Amino acid sequence: MSDIPAFNPPTRILMGPGPSGANPRVLRAMTAPLLGHLDPEFLKIMDECRSMLRRVMRTENQVTLATPGTGTSGMEAAVMNLVRPGDRVVSGVCGYFGERITQMAERAGGTVTKVTAPWGSPVDPAAIESAVKANGPVQLVTIVHAETSTGVQQPIEAIAKIAHDAGALLVVDCVTSLGGVPVEPDKWGADAVYSGTQKCLSAPPGVSPITLSAAAWDRVKSRETPSNTWYLDLSLLEAYWDERRAYHHTAPISMIYALHEAVALVLEEGLEQRWARHERNGRALQNGLEAMGLVLHADAGFRLPVLTTVRIPEGVADAEVRGALLKRHSIEIGGGLGDLRAKVWRIGLMGESSTEGNVLLFLSSLGKILREHGFKADLRAGLAAATARLEQP
Amino acid sequence: MSDIPAFNPPTRILMGPGPSGANPRVLRAMTAPLLGHLDPEFLKIMDECRSMLRRVMRTENQVTLATPGTGTSGMEAAVMNLVRPGDRVVSGVCGYFGERITQMAERAGGTVTKVTAPWGSPVDPAAIESAVKANGPVQLVTIVHAETSTGVQQPIEAIAKIAHDAGALLVVDCVTSLGGVPVEPDKWGADAVYSGTQKCLSAPPGVSPITLSAAAWDRVKSRETPSNTWYLDLSLLEAYWDERRAYHHTAPISMIYALHEAVALVLEEGLEQRWARHERNGRALQNGLEAMGLVLHADAGFRLPVLTTVRIPEGVADAEVRGALLKRHSIEIGGGLGDLRAKVWRIGLMGESSTEGNVLLFLSSLGKILREHGFKADLRAGLAAATARLEQP
Repeated sequence: MSDIPAFNPPTRILMGPGPSGANPRVLRAMTAPLLGHLDPEFLKIMDECRSMLRRVMRTENQVTLATPGTGTSGMEAAVMNLVRPGDRVVSGVCGYFGERITQMAERAGGTVTKVTAPWGSPVDPAAIESAVKANGPVQLVTIVHAETSTGVQQPIEAIAKIAHDAGALLVVDCVTSLGGVPVEPDKWGADAVYSGTQKCLSAPPGVSPITLSAAAWDRVKSRETPSNTWYLDLSLLEAYWDERRAYHHTAPISMIYALHEAVALVLEEGLEQRWARHERNGRALQNGLEAMGLVLHADAGFRLPVLTTVRIPEGVADAEVRGALLKRHSIEIGGGLGDLRAKVWRIGLMGESSTEGNVLLFLSSLGKILREHGFKADLRAGLAAATARLEQP
Repeated sequence: MSDIPAFNPPTRILMGPGPSGANPRVLRAMTAPLLGHLDPEFLKIMDECRSMLRRVMRTENQVTLATPGTGTSGMEAAVMNLVRPGDRVVSGVCGYFGERITQMAERAGGTVTKVTAPWGSPVDPAAIESAVKANGPVQLVTIVHAETSTGVQQPIEAIAKIAHDAGALLVVDCVTSLGGVPVEPDKWGADAVYSGTQKCLSAPPGVSPITLSAAAWDRVKSRETPSNTWYLDLSLLEAYWDERRAYHHTAPISMIYALHEAVALVLEEGLEQRWARHERNGRALQNGLEAMGLVLHADAGFRLPVLTTVRIPEGVADAEVRGALLKRHSIEIGGGLGDLRAKVWRIGLMGESSTEGNVLLFLSSLGKILREHGFKADLRAGLAAATARLEQP
């Protein structure tokens, strides 16, 4: 019928801040026939997801599950369940997502002290320590491991020690890091870690892996008032994910199928090999961009391999370059968020999108477009630098 | 690798309270390549979803969108955004889902008066009216249109009039009714209506259609404190769905694809034709069950065609019968929830699952199993009664 729109989405090369390209096996899994959310065969798939998630998240935590929403639902679950009205929270903020955690903690009734750093640098653990001491007793410290708005990778262990020495719990946002760079809740001493599926796990967005330490779980169970959220109440979610199988919501069946195959693919590749692939391709891209004459935005030594921020050269129009990449080459990259709007581009090399071919195609495409816009990108040097890095392990 | 579980879910005939079977075209849509959540082609798909949702939901409401979670996320969005701390709420409760709304309204800071009815009857509008008058001024009235736990269809218009005469807004849960029986927010005068995708729309669970009247939207916009939830904050969600396109969350891309094709299929079939199909198959099943000697649980005159509750005959074991249906015939039906646990079965005929073949197969399978369990089901009479109703339009 003519008034019912046809459905034919085009194919893109997804090199923005997420979603990344999905593995065909993950997409195919979603066409499997639906099962009921209490069907024994579906419960078995949930158990397998849970067990594989523990391996991918390198944790022994009992409470490890996927919240029924995109990455932000994991953030909301962690914050709304762990922050009780009146709790004192110290929130490390060096980008858009740190800021978002702060907003949620305030909605949960927390009294939040922000510890900020410039957008492009990590948060200084010493500043966290001062804030924890000045505002004690602090119940919760929050930090973003991979700040998707700036491309900064935040070291976690020092902050975990500060939190624990003060008797506080630590929440770590790993939306953009899980499956791409080492995420180690148990080794770090992180009490709540959540992620998304559409970044380095390369499944469509729709569920959010989360894991809680025994101490975090005690905090959730001992709440005197229930959390603000019913949909993302971890006590109710865990009662469905564990052997009680108490009905809470109708699980997003097809998304759980996708998650099952996405984490299976991670384990089949091997976590160490996968981290090495992301490291190799990310550094090749970064070396290539610098050799072309561009300036990386994030501080050296704290650059995520999976998400690179590069400064837009003086006089070059942000939207036109991104438009040309999309129209001519079907490549999506991201613009800047918040303070970095029109100042940087965000280039993701996550999961299935992290390939040698994408590194070279992107450098070549961007170089040519930049030259049309009056910036003399040294394309030859850029490709040489990238190739040299790609040849290393 | 041997320690990575294989993925091969079996095929079921889904005749429980949801999910229902999905149309293959909907499942196929989810294998389309992922687009970025701000890609112009994806925004066009969102606009088309919005416009088709307005037609399926029979509303002119500007604020019509899909929340990024299963049906319960629609409930949480409606309740958490419309209930402000201290608001007085009258909540009609005649089953599990009415109770759930009450719990959410309390978490949102509302003072809730419950108006109950036995599980199997609708809520009496006169009782709502008394509660509204006794607790005035009341800001919100909530009611469930299709109570999935009891199989009762609640008349809405009288309750809408009571709410509006008292200056209150009306929230209506249509999770199980949309696409199966008439849902008419504008005609009813309902201010917030939400649904799920996995019932009569026959898509996988994962997003929740919701629509708000102008009055409801004014309430949301004029809040002095933000809603408890950030993830399901309708002000933020609408700013992404409307022309502002302000980033809020990474949309569940593949689920929006599925929604697009699910609502297109509803419009292609035609809403009236679809309602008639659900009515025909549902009444055929109900006539068949009664002719077999079983007793329907919901009050006559208030029985949903899309979800039938039937009493488990004395001495027949609930779990064994459901187990035999699943094992021998691959048919899933639902057990009772809450007060109706082990007392009724819940049989869904929703969306793709609402077929003549499923009615006959189910009656035949159940009849044979019941006879093995000592209940003398009159299978011949049951099939004859069903067939007679299936022959009518």
